[in-house]
Amino acid sequence: MQKFSAQIKKSGKTIALVPTMGYLHEGHISLVRIAQKVCDATIVSIFVNPAQFGPSEDLNSYPRDLEKDCALLKKEGVETIFTPTPKELYPAGYQTYVNALHLSEHLCGISRPALFKGVTTVLTKLFNIVSPNKAVFGKKDFQQFVIVCQMIKDLNFNIEIIGAPIVREADGLAMSSRNAYLKKNQRKPALSLYKALKQSEQLVKKGEKRAETIIGAALKLINSFDETLIDYISICNLETFEEVKIIDCPVLMALAVKVGKTRLIDNIILSP
Amino acid sequence: MQKFSAQIKKSGKTIALVPTMGYLHEGHISLVRIAQKVCDATIVSIFVNPAQFGPSEDLNSYPRDLEKDCALLKKEGVETIFTPTPKELYPAGYQTYVNALHLSEHLCGISRPALFKGVTTVLTKLFNIVSPNKAVFGKKDFQQFVIVCQMIKDLNFNIEIIGAPIVREADGLAMSSRNAYLKKNQRKPALSLYKALKQSEQLVKKGEKRAETIIGAALKLINSFDETLIDYISICNLETFEEVKIIDCPVLMALAVKVGKTRLIDNIILSP
Repeated sequence: MQKFSAQIKKSGKTIALVPTMGYLHEGHISLVRIAQKVCDATIVSIFVNPAQFGPSEDLNSYPRDLEKDCALLKKEGVETIFTPTPKELYPAGYQTYVNALHLSEHLCGISRPALFKGVTTVLTKLFNIVSPNKAVFGKKDFQQFVIVCQMIKDLNFNIEIIGAPIVREADGLAMSSRNAYLKKNQRKPALSLYKALKQSEQLVKKGEKRAETIIGAALKLINSFDETLIDYISICNLETFEEVKIIDCPVLMALAVKVGKTRLIDNIILSP
Repeated sequence: MQKFSAQIKKSGKTIALVPTMGYLHEGHISLVRIAQKVCDATIVSIFVNPAQFGPSEDLNSYPRDLEKDCALLKKEGVETIFTPTPKELYPAGYQTYVNALHLSEHLCGISRPALFKGVTTVLTKLFNIVSPNKAVFGKKDFQQFVIVCQMIKDLNFNIEIIGAPIVREADGLAMSSRNAYLKKNQRKPALSLYKALKQSEQLVKKGEKRAETIIGAALKLINSFDETLIDYISICNLETFEEVKIIDCPVLMALAVKVGKTRLIDNIILSP
């Protein structure tokens, strides 16, 4: 892959990388289409990264369908798919990790302490292997997007990061490979994340500025479903993820909710 | 620097990086001469890296003489010297660190816990800025050399690391910028490191295989000087730094000794 990338760049072409864990959906495809617009060559990596899963998390059950993924990408005109194995990226004796300290201590980093260290580590590796000019990330994983931007800046990677808007199902559910876990009767409780975000947006539109009030209403809505278990609901600074009490500038509202065994996340920017 | 490096590489030339903390001596110059042999362009970075100094260490007093360094490098025909400031490499909000876990837990990593995390972090940055094909390191810092090799492999940097032999003064003292700290009457105790290593080599040559015996003799020799304070003397595996009891293959003998306030290190490969 490294040699192949070097050849592409030697020929004067630019490379856009779309790093994924596979089991692709319309959200991923939207990233691919952006990549194709901004660079000459698009490389999609498919790698379920063990380093970003905690011991009790869903590494083994995480959905995989490489054949279908490749067919989807072929249809989009993607010529290069990078599918390393865990042993290739983490051989015996592997021990080097990349860590963005402060940003990882908020939101998803609290209940998933391995997550962002694993993400920044595997991305450092993928960036060094693929050597892209640009890389495209979805903003459903908003914290990941901000952390990747910080890492790029801190470690002086010469790569432009592009954040892409959340893609949703017709009913509003944010697209996620983990939606495949949801049973039929879990669809409604799963939708409570989006509904809580839209409700918050409406409250802000009506003049509500107190984060506590907005979060309270969101809690109530989500808890009205039996199968939901809230991990966090946060209204916080867009760049630092520090909690905000009064909304007097655009802020991030982010939440993580377990629906049965499936952990879902979603977010919205609230602007007063 | 990043743009300048890209231009050099675009013109088809290869780049060798010699990362230094300045106050250059013959040891550094030997690295420069190797760099000049193996690549078209040599870039020497001079940066006293705050991230690798602990709070009680000698960051502020570390010797600096940029003017003399530049004159020395000019004499060697080096055209590119990269001298970033601490604020440029670690701006406000900086938070991303690279860490090679296991190898950092031995030898110098024990008494200097910030050292290797700082080294691997700044090197990741320098590698991303300079984008060298090769990088040259002195083997006086043997642990650093092994950790850099591990990091290069783990993070998939497309860079060849070259290790260069220790350069010594006429009396055997390993060249180091910190030798500048030594007072006249500390020269003899400082030499005890080299003498202990040579004594160990002799013992192995005579058939001694027990690490304990060899270390005991080294301890005795170094402790015979008033101003020495041993940090560690280790006979260990060349690749993992795990302690070795019986020398039945080439091993590393490494030591760190304080002479007055000056911490000196040295090492030798012992082959049975």
